[in-house]
Amino acid sequence: MADAKYDVLGIGNALFDVLVRTDENFLAKHGMTKGSMALIDEARAAAIYQDMGPATEMSGGSAANTIVGIASLGARAAYVGKVKDDQIGRLYAHDIRAAGVSFKTQAAADGPATGCSYILVTPDGERTMNTYLGAAQDLSPADIDPAEIEASRIVYLEGYLWDPKNAKEAFVKAAAIAHGARRQVALTLSDSFCVDRYRDEFLSLMRSGTVDLVFANEAELHSLYQTSDFDTALRQLRNDVGLGVVTRSEKGCMVTSTEVQIAVPAFAVEEVMDTTGAGDLFAAGFLFGLARGLGYETAGRLGGLAAAEVIQHIGARPQTSLKELAGQNGLAV
Amino acid sequence: MADAKYDVLGIGNALFDVLVRTDENFLAKHGMTKGSMALIDEARAAAIYQDMGPATEMSGGSAANTIVGIASLGARAAYVGKVKDDQIGRLYAHDIRAAGVSFKTQAAADGPATGCSYILVTPDGERTMNTYLGAAQDLSPADIDPAEIEASRIVYLEGYLWDPKNAKEAFVKAAAIAHGARRQVALTLSDSFCVDRYRDEFLSLMRSGTVDLVFANEAELHSLYQTSDFDTALRQLRNDVGLGVVTRSEKGCMVTSTEVQIAVPAFAVEEVMDTTGAGDLFAAGFLFGLARGLGYETAGRLGGLAAAEVIQHIGARPQTSLKELAGQNGLAV
Repeated sequence: MADAKYDVLGIGNALFDVLVRTDENFLAKHGMTKGSMALIDEARAAAIYQDMGPATEMSGGSAANTIVGIASLGARAAYVGKVKDDQIGRLYAHDIRAAGVSFKTQAAADGPATGCSYILVTPDGERTMNTYLGAAQDLSPADIDPAEIEASRIVYLEGYLWDPKNAKEAFVKAAAIAHGARRQVALTLSDSFCVDRYRDEFLSLMRSGTVDLVFANEAELHSLYQTSDFDTALRQLRNDVGLGVVTRSEKGCMVTSTEVQIAVPAFAVEEVMDTTGAGDLFAAGFLFGLARGLGYETAGRLGGLAAAEVIQHIGARPQTSLKELAGQNGLAV
Repeated sequence: MADAKYDVLGIGNALFDVLVRTDENFLAKHGMTKGSMALIDEARAAAIYQDMGPATEMSGGSAANTIVGIASLGARAAYVGKVKDDQIGRLYAHDIRAAGVSFKTQAAADGPATGCSYILVTPDGERTMNTYLGAAQDLSPADIDPAEIEASRIVYLEGYLWDPKNAKEAFVKAAAIAHGARRQVALTLSDSFCVDRYRDEFLSLMRSGTVDLVFANEAELHSLYQTSDFDTALRQLRNDVGLGVVTRSEKGCMVTSTEVQIAVPAFAVEEVMDTTGAGDLFAAGFLFGLARGLGYETAGRLGGLAAAEVIQHIGARPQTSLKELAGQNGLAV
């Protein structure tokens, strides 16, 4: 196995976040399911936006947030995702590169605008996302550079990639190249409704060994195995994938495989401001720990630390150096 | 005097804020004067942005921030400012309207992009602004609708309007219409370097009675009268304008005229996160109090309260209802 140029390379839907604080009534009025991600078309995007309050904008996208978190921990990271060459796409490309991430995906010259997600944050800190995929629709296998994949210790993929029409082919291509280079492939299940849309395909990716590591939160895990019993679902996960990591909010996480089962506690949080990016940043900490061979316990702690940072402010990307934060919390990296 | 449709109508440079936390070295490297606003051209904008870290974006513009604050206090408010009909211009128009402000200025169909300000926030919370005027260059007298001006109790103008080439004509046109309708005209001096560029013109606006009320911070006041002695400057201000309001950061403000001189204390602040918008929101509270006839003392307290809210988070627009905040602080409006 050649030396890795990147610790982690992520592939995902490149989305600009438009965040607004709102109340529960707004969700009800627009028929939104709290805590979920719903795909919306241009007309619905316009209707929701028209009715939304003043917003704060910043770059987002699930795997992109994870990759930025990994870079913030001090690792070498790369991202593959599709924006358009428009004003928002240029903001997006700036932000991810300014975070120290290698980002080489060609922006679309025409077609739909850079994708965005309207994120409603309720007073309890929970986020509800409405995503217009836009240019992210057009991520295709041609955007996967074999040399970049081969040069990455871990390739990290989001389940949301099953939504755009050609991205799953890019996903499978990347996974095959990674395994050909004896690299690891990780998948996040992304969202319980996303799991519901693609359950069989996700299980097939796991059972065929296309992915080596799966991240899921409890809702996604229950959706995957269509059971309300956590232990049953966890046992199935362990049989279906090399390594499973289940996040449980303030209860921390479970790392599970046929050889190990470790529960790692969460970090204490003063006030949950906005849960956007919690899962993404958990994955950042965990993947960093894994790529650096720090062991599952430390990886889980790093995940919890990064998630705790991101839920204490608005937006899904860290606002402080996670490397320094880890040092301050006795997790010198 | 007819009934006013709006309590306050503001005219200013419509700018999208691109905010980033940075260190003092960044300012030094790029030759920036901390705490000031510098005008930059497209090439310098590109150079600064290229070197900036990941940013958070939100709508800004000095008078626009003030007007949004006034709406947040529960008043009827309108804004005149020029964006382009581009992605960022559409975000801008959405945000100000979603804040409850009437915004009817026609977006430019071509010409430069919507203007933006790169705002560097240092660890001490101080902001340093670099403004690319873009479409704001093209605000002109044609954008001033006499009926709207006549229907506004107070017309509020920013000194920054002296920078774009035709905006000062729009400013003077609006002031003349307002006085013709027996309305009040207020001006903020905006920035000490801006005062330095247009000192004679600002003094002439004051001495000719084109403006009735002037907002200045200490640096702007000292720059206006080219003296380091506060009392000397204050005395001159009082002679030059009907009402002068001088903000002094944590020392509160001074309201001065030939009849009154009132010092109003500031509100206590736990931690200064980002001073962007402090002066703008002070003006919001003060103008609200003035428009509603609450007296200078209460107006000054409302100004201090609104400023205190905005400096405790990133960004120049309130993140909570100022009306509710005022109520909680015994300033029921």
